[in-house]
Amino acid sequence: MKLRQVEARNFRNITQLDYHPGSGLNILLGDNAQGKTNILESIYVLSTGSSFRTGQDKNMIQYEKEAFILRGRYNYNDRDIESILSYSLKEGKRFAVNSKKTTFNHSDRLRVVLFTPDDLYLIKGSPGKRRQFLDFVLGQIKNEYDYNLSNYVKILKKRNLLLKREQSNTRSFKIIEDIFIENAARVILARINLITILDESSSSIYKEISNKGQLKTRYALSFPIDSGKINLDILKKALKKQIQEKTDQEIKRRSSLVGPHLDDMHIYQDGKLARYFASQGQQRNIAVALKLAELYTFKKISGFYPVFLLDEVLSELDAQKRQLLLDHLQEAEFQSFLTSVHLNDVEYSQAAISVVENGEIH
Amino acid sequence: MKLRQVEARNFRNITQLDYHPGSGLNILLGDNAQGKTNILESIYVLSTGSSFRTGQDKNMIQYEKEAFILRGRYNYNDRDIESILSYSLKEGKRFAVNSKKTTFNHSDRLRVVLFTPDDLYLIKGSPGKRRQFLDFVLGQIKNEYDYNLSNYVKILKKRNLLLKREQSNTRSFKIIEDIFIENAARVILARINLITILDESSSSIYKEISNKGQLKTRYALSFPIDSGKINLDILKKALKKQIQEKTDQEIKRRSSLVGPHLDDMHIYQDGKLARYFASQGQQRNIAVALKLAELYTFKKISGFYPVFLLDEVLSELDAQKRQLLLDHLQEAEFQSFLTSVHLNDVEYSQAAISVVENGEIH
Repeated sequence: MKLRQVEARNFRNITQLDYHPGSGLNILLGDNAQGKTNILESIYVLSTGSSFRTGQDKNMIQYEKEAFILRGRYNYNDRDIESILSYSLKEGKRFAVNSKKTTFNHSDRLRVVLFTPDDLYLIKGSPGKRRQFLDFVLGQIKNEYDYNLSNYVKILKKRNLLLKREQSNTRSFKIIEDIFIENAARVILARINLITILDESSSSIYKEISNKGQLKTRYALSFPIDSGKINLDILKKALKKQIQEKTDQEIKRRSSLVGPHLDDMHIYQDGKLARYFASQGQQRNIAVALKLAELYTFKKISGFYPVFLLDEVLSELDAQKRQLLLDHLQEAEFQSFLTSVHLNDVEYSQAAISVVENGEIH
Repeated sequence: MKLRQVEARNFRNITQLDYHPGSGLNILLGDNAQGKTNILESIYVLSTGSSFRTGQDKNMIQYEKEAFILRGRYNYNDRDIESILSYSLKEGKRFAVNSKKTTFNHSDRLRVVLFTPDDLYLIKGSPGKRRQFLDFVLGQIKNEYDYNLSNYVKILKKRNLLLKREQSNTRSFKIIEDIFIENAARVILARINLITILDESSSSIYKEISNKGQLKTRYALSFPIDSGKINLDILKKALKKQIQEKTDQEIKRRSSLVGPHLDDMHIYQDGKLARYFASQGQQRNIAVALKLAELYTFKKISGFYPVFLLDEVLSELDAQKRQLLLDHLQEAEFQSFLTSVHLNDVEYSQAAISVVENGEIH
């Protein structure tokens, strides 16, 4: 997928934008608060329908205006596609692909992978952040996964409610056990398969963009498994056994202590847990490697690359790491957009540079 | 307070460090993962007894070693003080000020204010982050505040428990109401007074380090007040009224819907909420202004400056903002330590520069 044109009107500090990016690495250069991230945000919103910066669409409308409109033209599977999103205070949101009104599930919609400084929390945040990442990637790729996950979440809620109400001896508690285990095992298995692919990509990318350093990513189950092999049956048996052993404790704590809602993804750098032992710059580099791996995984499964958006990724990296990352993006097959306040010490002759000033591109 | 010497042994990637900083701005310069943040961490741990990067002390011990030791020599109220912290796997933690074993409440201990990239969450994180910040600053300054706050937290738990158990008609629910209101009002009043001081400092600092831009900080109560004036009695009356109005809803939701646990601090840049409208770089600048204001507030109330530690604050700021911040730190009366991967485009002739490489200072 390659963006050929981005137009925006009355979006954040952008009054009118007509941007024709290059097909490789695009760099948006400018001082703070000039609108670099607003351009990334416009691309992201065209893809997903909502922002990564605000939950309220009205916050994206330019000050004292009543509506914004975004238009993207991109190439997808050798076809030229246009999508338009408009949002007004009066009429709300409208989205169209090739002039036909549609939803953000449309198969021809723009696809992006986004990296922001907040993605550091993938490394140092709580396990919930990492589960969210896995669930998001899987949800983008497989509709079946979202189905199993939402089933699991519903049953988990029901189960916790019964535990809270001290009704773990009831018939309904027993009845949901099998469904609970079935969905839990499917969620876990999908995550483990994803991590196998992610680990392969991210460890080779990390070697490249960190120059030295070994990255390993492993799924961390919250319960023991006796077997060296993992499949659906083995997971189900292990879950069942664990539930039997923990039921007393679950009744006491009034909460489900078994299942994928307690699992984690362990990220090791040179054999040590990155969340405790990697430096700020290394953690940022690891987060980028995981996001790049997300991009390659998407390509492997869906057959095409999303557009890669990178917000302020160069800061905090030392000169060598900045260059290695830029080299990777300049030589990649996919299209990327990267914001930065300066380009000291780096070679960027293959990139398309745009200077952003006061909501305009120069 | 000025640090004259920092020694560290077997701490993170530092085998042996003997660092004699300058009394103004000190810059720790180096590539990623060389140990810049480890030096800040050693100073922070000497001050507070624990790390901002890990909950487990053993993670700070150098790989395959059994213990670390930190020593600081600093000037405080014209006296020279030495504090030593050692931690070993076998014997745990020991802390001494001027060769006497003591605790981290000792009045002569080192004091620091820390800024890390995570402090961006002060701006864009949940209200809880901002309440935590206010509570931390107040706790450092006034012992009485911690007392009121911990009383409030205990009573809030008790109250929520009674609401959960549908016992809001009991005698004990009525009995705790007055204590609940009393402590709630004291916590809120202390926070409002703090914000008045913080707002004054931070808005003038922000004007200086952002060049343009107006910063306003206001306490956001979760309940209405009829009066323009605020004092303890007015707060108590307003809380009482609000509790009466909300009790039905509280019973339904089984949770306390009134009190300082629901308040927030609103941060406005040029009249707009910074969490939604400020750019990444601006948010970082605002967070630094609030941290500097914390330092000046500390001085105003305690009579002396803590040491200011700034981790990776320059990245994401544009050239002008980097220079304005460095100027402020170079001209300040307090001592500061700042890490950075490079010093392009900035003038730093009044700073003491140390290059950090592989856990050593050059």
